[in-house]
Amino acid sequence: MDSSLGADSARQVLPQKDSFVRNAWYCAGWDYDFSQAKGAVVARKIAGERLVLYRKPDGGVVAMEDRCPHRHAAMSLGRKEGDSLRCMYHGLKFGPDGRCTEIPGQAAIPDRVAIRVFPVVERDNWIWVWMGAPDKADPELIPFSIGYRDPGWNMRTSHIHVETNHRLEIANLMDLSHLAWAHHGSFGGTDAYVHAPIEHRLGERGVTSEFWLRSVPPPVFAQHLFPPEMLFDLHFDVRFSVPCNFMLHFEVFAAGAGKEGPSDGQLLLDTWTCQAVTPRDSDSVDYYYSWGPSRATDSPGMTDMLHEANERAFHEDKVVLEAQYRNIREKPDAPFVGIKHDAGPSKMLRILDRLLAEEAAAAAAV
Amino acid sequence: MDSSLGADSARQVLPQKDSFVRNAWYCAGWDYDFSQAKGAVVARKIAGERLVLYRKPDGGVVAMEDRCPHRHAAMSLGRKEGDSLRCMYHGLKFGPDGRCTEIPGQAAIPDRVAIRVFPVVERDNWIWVWMGAPDKADPELIPFSIGYRDPGWNMRTSHIHVETNHRLEIANLMDLSHLAWAHHGSFGGTDAYVHAPIEHRLGERGVTSEFWLRSVPPPVFAQHLFPPEMLFDLHFDVRFSVPCNFMLHFEVFAAGAGKEGPSDGQLLLDTWTCQAVTPRDSDSVDYYYSWGPSRATDSPGMTDMLHEANERAFHEDKVVLEAQYRNIREKPDAPFVGIKHDAGPSKMLRILDRLLAEEAAAAAAV
Amino acid sequence: MDSSLGADSARQVLPQKDSFVRNAWYCAGWDYDFSQAKGAVVARKIAGERLVLYRKPDGGVVAMEDRCPHRHAAMSLGRKEGDSLRCMYHGLKFGPDGRCTEIPGQAAIPDRVAIRVFPVVERDNWIWVWMGAPDKADPELIPFSIGYRDPGWNMRTSHIHVETNHRLEIANLMDLSHLAWAHHGSFGGTDAYVHAPIEHRLGERGVTSEFWLRSVPPPVFAQHLFPPEMLFDLHFDVRFSVPCNFMLHFEVFAAGAGKEGPSDGQLLLDTWTCQAVTPRDSDSVDYYYSWGPSRATDSPGMTDMLHEANERAFHEDKVVLEAQYRNIREKPDAPFVGIKHDAGPSKMLRILDRLLAEEAAAAAAV
Repeated sequence: MDSSLGADSARQVLPQKDSFVRNAWYCAGWDYDFSQAKGAVVARKIAGERLVLYRKPDGGVVAMEDRCPHRHAAMSLGRKEGDSLRCMYHGLKFGPDGRCTEIPGQAAIPDRVAIRVFPVVERDNWIWVWMGAPDKADPELIPFSIGYRDPGWNMRTSHIHVETNHRLEIANLMDLSHLAWAHHGSFGGTDAYVHAPIEHRLGERGVTSEFWLRSVPPPVFAQHLFPPEMLFDLHFDVRFSVPCNFMLHFEVFAAGAGKEGPSDGQLLLDTWTCQAVTPRDSDSVDYYYSWGPSRATDSPGMTDMLHEANERAFHEDKVVLEAQYRNIREKPDAPFVGIKHDAGPSKMLRILDRLLAEEAAAAAAV
Repeated sequence: MDSSLGADSARQVLPQKDSFVRNAWYCAGWDYDFSQAKGAVVARKIAGERLVLYRKPDGGVVAMEDRCPHRHAAMSLGRKEGDSLRCMYHGLKFGPDGRCTEIPGQAAIPDRVAIRVFPVVERDNWIWVWMGAPDKADPELIPFSIGYRDPGWNMRTSHIHVETNHRLEIANLMDLSHLAWAHHGSFGGTDAYVHAPIEHRLGERGVTSEFWLRSVPPPVFAQHLFPPEMLFDLHFDVRFSVPCNFMLHFEVFAAGAGKEGPSDGQLLLDTWTCQAVTPRDSDSVDYYYSWGPSRATDSPGMTDMLHEANERAFHEDKVVLEAQYRNIREKPDAPFVGIKHDAGPSKMLRILDRLLAEEAAAAAAV
Repeated sequence: MDSSLGADSARQVLPQKDSFVRNAWYCAGWDYDFSQAKGAVVARKIAGERLVLYRKPDGGVVAMEDRCPHRHAAMSLGRKEGDSLRCMYHGLKFGPDGRCTEIPGQAAIPDRVAIRVFPVVERDNWIWVWMGAPDKADPELIPFSIGYRDPGWNMRTSHIHVETNHRLEIANLMDLSHLAWAHHGSFGGTDAYVHAPIEHRLGERGVTSEFWLRSVPPPVFAQHLFPPEMLFDLHFDVRFSVPCNFMLHFEVFAAGAGKEGPSDGQLLLDTWTCQAVTPRDSDSVDYYYSWGPSRATDSPGMTDMLHEANERAFHEDKVVLEAQYRNIREKPDAPFVGIKHDAGPSKMLRILDRLLAEEAAAAAAV
């Protein structure tokens, strides 16, 4: 029996409110959000935690809880002083390690006066924050991506906020058959997505998925560029990782004659789209994303066209996902009907659930 | 003892949250909201249920739950395909009977993959949806009304959304003494409403109410048309039915000499106002309404004046009702003081309560 | 051990939701909000109660619950009729003592048909409402203040709404060290606030606090008026009382030579700022305030400069307090770290807690 066809309900797909894998790198945004400017003291909410992030004079980024331990004023209303951050309610000052270094009006500073800090790594123009145990913060776990300053690629970047649970974003991204429907006015233009034989490879913390669409029309957003009869081979190579990072190497070839393996058509466009979905909390996500062609296959106007198509498509998803989530919240016990295409989402959600269970077991064992 | 003078509380007048008579026709709006246009896939919330409605090529209107059974995407974001509706998230397609006819990517379609559909009847330019057991959907239960295309009447239509419980709308409409106060700047102009001897006749599913105001000044909105001393006889004939439909035959006569029975003055204006109040949920209603004179008694500008008076008065009610409901929600156990004029509201609310009890008993017996 | 340094949590600082001292005068606003105009029927929410206030022809102000006892329509949508207020839903009329004097459509008016009224006193251009037992409403308990019509002072008045709990406003106002930080762009300009030796005197229902800052620069908002080296002695004399009234006599002297007692510099500016913080409910306050110099020490433009500085500073507080309260609501059990400057807030909060406990004990004894 194909379990993907079984009935379950939203409570099973969205099992635990405010449940997030802690030992993972969460994208906090693009590097340009964390400048050396005086005012660049940035508030973020990640996996249910309010954080403040700021860049030190040495260029490093600090992430700490956005809460002064005194009376819980927002540190994001604070003032940078060297590599420290001062709360601007009553003036308590904290070093980049979170230790309090000054309490105005008193000499003694008890050791326990400190703010929790979180490991931060800056890579490929993204700021990554580790939300779990600091000693487990292994930079090797940061997913591969192409930054917008990579000289080999002409990326454009963006950001959108979506009011949905990140697990529904996983389900969205792990089943690209929705490109035929939700994106019929942008990425779509063929129902080949529905029938593509997808190969999923499971890893410890993610899934890779690869498939070809052969001899298909171009996506709707590019159809005006080609004669109606012109066909293409499209190659999708997805690297998906926790919490919800979607890195897609997408290549366009002139339609070849082969039906197996790599296209024997000419490579026309070689692109990467890098997408990091960060849950703010159970009900919303910050979605940081980029798309762009290799410098070798770029042409004037191409990068901007891809960017505009991306912007349209991400808003199409936002509308669908927010209405879906509203429906699910209103009737959390209404059954879900499974279909064959749930296989991809199920694989990734099972990995997430395994990691959550491992963290829960480890917490219980302490 | 007159029980209408007894003290009770909001919990008794608004006894059950999310409690609606299921076996009833609910107005879903004016026919023009459900056009043949591609984009006319209409979301509604009726009696706590989110519905999608659309018109088939044959003109019939389909109402189904606004929830794809797969992952609960909103069908109201879907696409009309002939007489079917396709979910535009993953492409599942449903016929007008709610049965799934296509699951992209798989051949088998389990029987249980279906969306609940609701009986629909279009009558007098209104779309009526039966929210209960389909086998009980008797079109004879649809209340009499005058549509805006009725050749005998020059109706104008409108719609307002009010954030209150529909039981408080019943109480509003079943006690027209409020015209003297809440509408002192529009429909009012006399306190005769307070003293009118009203005859209520109780039916299985509604109440009819009739009364005359004799030798009264015109309503405020029309006082500028007449010399100050001019008086009129006004006749009100109300047909009220569940859930909250108010159909009023309202006639204006020159003041006659009689004190009993029909006025012996000249009929100056013969009008109908048809009002259907549809609860979205426990906290808000959609209010569809019209007013207009008979073609025989109409005169240039008359229909528009009535419409403008209606618009003003419905906003007067909205302000009063929303503040009242806010007060009631904040202190649901604060006592109510009964007055004589509660008699009308009580009669209709008792009918509603009887129907609710009958449905609850029938459900318990299954 | 200094208990102000102990750790506690928001639940201890904000112990009881919807807990207010009842036997206290609450400021309902400036006299000009309660004019003789027809439309001046004013809705207020004070200590969790919705009130309606209006001025009678004799000039007295009536405060009653904003709820008609019939079906809970808002009396603030009612109509002044002489010294009475008529509900404009079904016309019930109430005298200034809250007794119902007319029920349209019926002769009998049961005694129990009445609205609760609250004692009101108008003093120093403020309207004060007693929220507790009327027989305990002693006008002697109204705090001293300087009204804007006081001929000796040139006051300007204002109002702001802040979404925080009034106990956090108490904590704000009872620790003026925050002027150095939260108001570093307005009232600040020196960290002398942090080190001022403050003398607190505890009363039955409040605290007085006095301190001097000696030989300090002027506040930031006035620094442009003086040569950089010019210094001043500042005198603060605070009278704080329940629920959250802050009356400050603030004097500016040319810097004197003395280090103890009154300044021996010349008195340059003598001012009062009168501030009444009224909780709407547990989550928000109305803040009525004024500031102004004595007529003897005023100079052209001075009053307006003080007003503008006040406006800026109150918005600075609003931003800090609302972010703080959001943080506290999100994690009500997160610990607070105490610091030395909590001594002032603690003193006043303890008085409030004692009064709350006394009222609870009295209520339990009934």
